[in-house]
Amino acid sequence: MPVRPVRLLLVGLGNLGRRFCALLGERETDLARRYGLRFLLVGAADSRGAAECPDGLDLRRVVALKEEGKSIAAYPGVGRPDRTALDLVREAEADVLCEASPVNLPAGGEPGLSCVRVALSRGMHVVTPNKGPIVLAYPELVRLARDRGVELRFDGTVAGGLPALYLGMRDLRGAIVSRIEAVPNLVTGLLIDRLLAGVPWEEAVAQARREGQLEADPSWDLDGWDATAKLVILANAVLGVPARLEDVEREGITGLTAEGARRAAGGGLLRLVARAERVAEGSYHLSVRPRSLPPEHPLGRLGTHGMGIVYETDLYGMIAATIDETTPLPSAATILRDLLDIYVGREDSASSGVGSRG
Amino acid sequence: MPVRPVRLLLVGLGNLGRRFCALLGERETDLARRYGLRFLLVGAADSRGAAECPDGLDLRRVVALKEEGKSIAAYPGVGRPDRTALDLVREAEADVLCEASPVNLPAGGEPGLSCVRVALSRGMHVVTPNKGPIVLAYPELVRLARDRGVELRFDGTVAGGLPALYLGMRDLRGAIVSRIEAVPNLVTGLLIDRLLAGVPWEEAVAQARREGQLEADPSWDLDGWDATAKLVILANAVLGVPARLEDVEREGITGLTAEGARRAAGGGLLRLVARAERVAEGSYHLSVRPRSLPPEHPLGRLGTHGMGIVYETDLYGMIAATIDETTPLPSAATILRDLLDIYVGREDSASSGVGSRG
Repeated sequence: MPVRPVRLLLVGLGNLGRRFCALLGERETDLARRYGLRFLLVGAADSRGAAECPDGLDLRRVVALKEEGKSIAAYPGVGRPDRTALDLVREAEADVLCEASPVNLPAGGEPGLSCVRVALSRGMHVVTPNKGPIVLAYPELVRLARDRGVELRFDGTVAGGLPALYLGMRDLRGAIVSRIEAVPNLVTGLLIDRLLAGVPWEEAVAQARREGQLEADPSWDLDGWDATAKLVILANAVLGVPARLEDVEREGITGLTAEGARRAAGGGLLRLVARAERVAEGSYHLSVRPRSLPPEHPLGRLGTHGMGIVYETDLYGMIAATIDETTPLPSAATILRDLLDIYVGREDSASSGVGSRG
Repeated sequence: MPVRPVRLLLVGLGNLGRRFCALLGERETDLARRYGLRFLLVGAADSRGAAECPDGLDLRRVVALKEEGKSIAAYPGVGRPDRTALDLVREAEADVLCEASPVNLPAGGEPGLSCVRVALSRGMHVVTPNKGPIVLAYPELVRLARDRGVELRFDGTVAGGLPALYLGMRDLRGAIVSRIEAVPNLVTGLLIDRLLAGVPWEEAVAQARREGQLEADPSWDLDGWDATAKLVILANAVLGVPARLEDVEREGITGLTAEGARRAAGGGLLRLVARAERVAEGSYHLSVRPRSLPPEHPLGRLGTHGMGIVYETDLYGMIAATIDETTPLPSAATILRDLLDIYVGREDSASSGVGSRG
């Protein structure tokens, strides 16, 4: 099979970006064999600089630099501390921007939002697991992608490696969605379970932070902003409702006590639940709050590492999907899923069709 | 939005075909508004004849004829008892063949297989919930569709309205599937539950047949052939393995007693489970047999009307999807899902994007 090169820019080299680089490196031969694709990382940027190389940066070297705590600016020969992510996206020649920088809503979703805008305007496809640009500018970005004839993919923004968005956007077509219920955030479930197991709140939070499960500012997860952002994306992308963060009734888990959690759980599973409920044609009530899910609920048996979504529709009954995500790999792999979805024919199987092997 | 006509042929007017007709009729205005599509049924055939009308048959009239137990040959003016489904597919001008005739493996999957072959050869897209052609000729039909540049869609062949195939074919790309477990057949679960509730086997079978859940020959479901056919489709389409019916180790539920079911269930849920287990690169052990699913298994809480699938992969962890299907509507709606997947842009949402409403 002839191998087709695909030139990637990667903005954001935190947990997700770095793991995605490692994945691309490990799977290079496999991806060429199964899909006839060779992904070249022709440029990469973090908050301290950028590096560009039209023949492709060495993925192992990029991963090694980040694991040593260095910036991509330290990449031998082509790393530059005076070049920003946005400079790179404005100037480099590439086919796809993979945008994996932090959400950063207080900073207006930057630099992600500008990078996505510029890449689409320049005719690049965009794949992003970054909720910021999608939450803040979904209608504008979708129109821009359509006008330029390129793809905008963001499956990784909701529920990690679970294709919760793809399920809703593609497989419910023709139906009217009466309700969405999702458990889209891992760390809040983990904290609730630890609280119920007797770990004091402050200690549970500190532990989650040490494990890299919580940001420096834990309120993004604990106050329900992360789940709210994911619900806003579901509302826009699946329900066709131009919802914004302020349209969601939001209650987080900050201040929850073991006693309060036990009471709230009743006999069920306590989780931070994002819910969209249809109240009239084209209108949904959106909420995020801790809810008890009874054992017979499709999400009522999620484990500590489980996320999930339920769609109730008039045509397809009730469809639920869950993921058990014990490592950050599935979330990083959504970037690969989105890339392959753009470049592999729609009719091809996971193993890329007849005769090829998994 | 300008409305684009799509000309359909429908072969097979049993439960699925008739319900699909009714659905198209009910949703005509909605589909035009949301997706800019107008589906015209320009030809239809059952086992006793065919009718063709380039301006579109009246869907309500087609449904009414079938509900009265008549053939489409009785359609006023254009119905003909001397015209077969295959004649229609050979001669009529259309964009898509919807093939919903019975599986009919003893008859070599006919007339479905020939109709699908001819339609693809003539440059029509094919949408089929009929397992026969896919089980018997997957590699050939996929190649034919590719050569002709048309789409072959068969999401409805596995697990009713659950997009079990789409999930596997699209959303696991890049991963290696180590295991698939599916509960893809409804009536066997229903019979097991009734047996356990004290209904004698013969009575449970007779009741299911009265309800239209079982064919005249119940062995298709009870001896596990239906689940086996679905596993063969999963193996071909998701795993890229050219498996055939005889490659599956098969055990059905015929002869099961209440006592045997109780013993087999243990503390779990007894279901007819289709399983593919990776034994080496490109090689899977395929089996269908009653298995007890413990409560913590992602399918261990399925209700009597539940079907589901679990994919275990190296990249995306464990992903499970279930459906609660209390009516035959979701299965009929898969034909619509497949049609919309062909004709609606990939990036569009269930509600067809920005500003449109569910």
